Amino acid sequence: MKLHILGCTAATPGTVTNPTSQILETKGHMFMIDCGEGSQVQLRRNRIKFSRINHIFISHLHGDHVFGLIGLVSTFTLLNRLDDLHIYGPVGIKEMILLQLKLGNSYTGYKLYFHELSSKESELIFEDKHVTVKTIPLKHRVYTNGFLIEEKEEVYQLNLDALNHYEVPVVYYNKAKQGGTITLENGQVLTSEDLTFGKIPQKSYAFCSDTAFHPPIVEVIQGASVLYHEATFLKKDQELAKKTLHSTAQEAAEIAKQAQVGQLILGHFSSRYKSFQLFKDEACPIFERTEIAQEGKTFEF
Amino acid sequence: MKLHILGCTAATPGTVTNPTSQILETKGHMFMIDCGEGSQVQLRRNRIKFSRINHIFISHLHGDHVFGLIGLVSTFTLLNRLDDLHIYGPVGIKEMILLQLKLGNSYTGYKLYFHELSSKESELIFEDKHVTVKTIPLKHRVYTNGFLIEEKEEVYQLNLDALNHYEVPVVYYNKAKQGGTITLENGQVLTSEDLTFGKIPQKSYAFCSDTAFHPPIVEVIQGASVLYHEATFLKKDQELAKKTLHSTAQEAAEIAKQAQVGQLILGHFSSRYKSFQLFKDEACPIFERTEIAQEGKTFEF
Repeated sequence: MKLHILGCTAATPGTVTNPTSQILETKGHMFMIDCGEGSQVQLRRNRIKFSRINHIFISHLHGDHVFGLIGLVSTFTLLNRLDDLHIYGPVGIKEMILLQLKLGNSYTGYKLYFHELSSKESELIFEDKHVTVKTIPLKHRVYTNGFLIEEKEEVYQLNLDALNHYEVPVVYYNKAKQGGTITLENGQVLTSEDLTFGKIPQKSYAFCSDTAFHPPIVEVIQGASVLYHEATFLKKDQELAKKTLHSTAQEAAEIAKQAQVGQLILGHFSSRYKSFQLFKDEACPIFERTEIAQEGKTFEF
Repeated sequence: MKLHILGCTAATPGTVTNPTSQILETKGHMFMIDCGEGSQVQLRRNRIKFSRINHIFISHLHGDHVFGLIGLVSTFTLLNRLDDLHIYGPVGIKEMILLQLKLGNSYTGYKLYFHELSSKESELIFEDKHVTVKTIPLKHRVYTNGFLIEEKEEVYQLNLDALNHYEVPVVYYNKAKQGGTITLENGQVLTSEDLTFGKIPQKSYAFCSDTAFHPPIVEVIQGASVLYHEATFLKKDQELAKKTLHSTAQEAAEIAKQAQVGQLILGHFSSRYKSFQLFKDEACPIFERTEIAQEGKTFEF
């Protein structure tokens, strides 16, 4: 999985900061998560091909997570997109987009599918051969979901030295990756133990923004490879976090610890703080494997 | 009058180009005209105070002229705006903005007044002691208006040397500016002829975008100090201009010539052209006093 951070600051876009949007690359997909104003420009800046985006997941209908969507949907038309586009988000997102297209008399030249969400339980919203996407019900001022993206199958990590040593034809590599047994022309039988380093753990990514400190999500995201959790505030502004149903860096770390995730990425920072390092400093004593989101940064896992 | 170009390219925002938005400073007002995606960031980049904007004029409901409006309206709330905001635009603009505020459960903390337009004739839509704003009905794929902003009263340009020479107290300067007669303590009577360089011509600004070549506007904008006219295409793409109801640089120049304006500013360039100088080269033989809009550029007149 490869995560591209397009924007990770709270509230309004600035000259060098952008509201929430990210791309998760996995199994040939480019899943877009949230689309604040200016996200289409961030796609260009990060040299991500517009045509590779077929699924957009919107956490909630606050502007800093969705106001860039109508612009992106329109730009797809100008780029002569033909592929279907699937948009997942709270009830109302369809009306929001269609009204604006109607008023501009600018309908899309491609098919637009809306998957409107209203359940308060985690649900499966996307599935193919390789990956599933489930909602993570969050606690915020409006109906909000995080998203858990999980790779489905387990694969074996190839041992190239061994493959060369046994002179295994390349055509068998995929079978080896699936853990299959291979019989060479000389009759030698090779198992996954001979040819691979063993199974690579299945990767998963949990996106949780925006949300108050909300321990019920721990069960849903348990053991995720990477958790992106909002940390709008520092501990000294705990009261503000409570009031606005956001989290502090410490609370995000507490969730990461309880869920035993592989890595925590903090984001959705309020612009009131001078340095984002402060968020890491507060989270690390609770959960050491904490990183800071940053626009233009990518995380591979 | 001082015109700030925040964005002047057609269609989609890019990494260094922005869709239409501009600010006209006149008589203490900061009138915003159009508000494509990213306009609020352009305001910051151009160091224009958000709080000084009280009137926003939207030409039409195509995305590159309006998709930044909801973000700006929301940011005003986050900045704790209290002053009324007036939005002028085609019927539907109110529903477009209010639906998005409702879905985000994020109503403004200030009063929002919508002035929805539907007339096909030029009409007066704003007036105070110093300035009027009238619509300029344009010809485009959806209902579209340009805007004619005119300074109302004529003032006299003060001759500071004369004022000093006659030792005129500063308290009389405003009266002199209005062309009044001033009697000094020593009984001397001074007229506008003694104290000023005479009347400064009344300034006016006509914004016309988006529109096909449409000579009926000439009557409305006759003699404007400055005309901003869209020039999406060059002559070689005349057919495309016709089809999409846009103008070429030559057509914009022809309008400027017929309307005998003081200066023409071309804008709304298609991103298909390598150099914006090409637009000027095509317009100048028809109308010499042609300038090219450019993001971050200001024009004083």
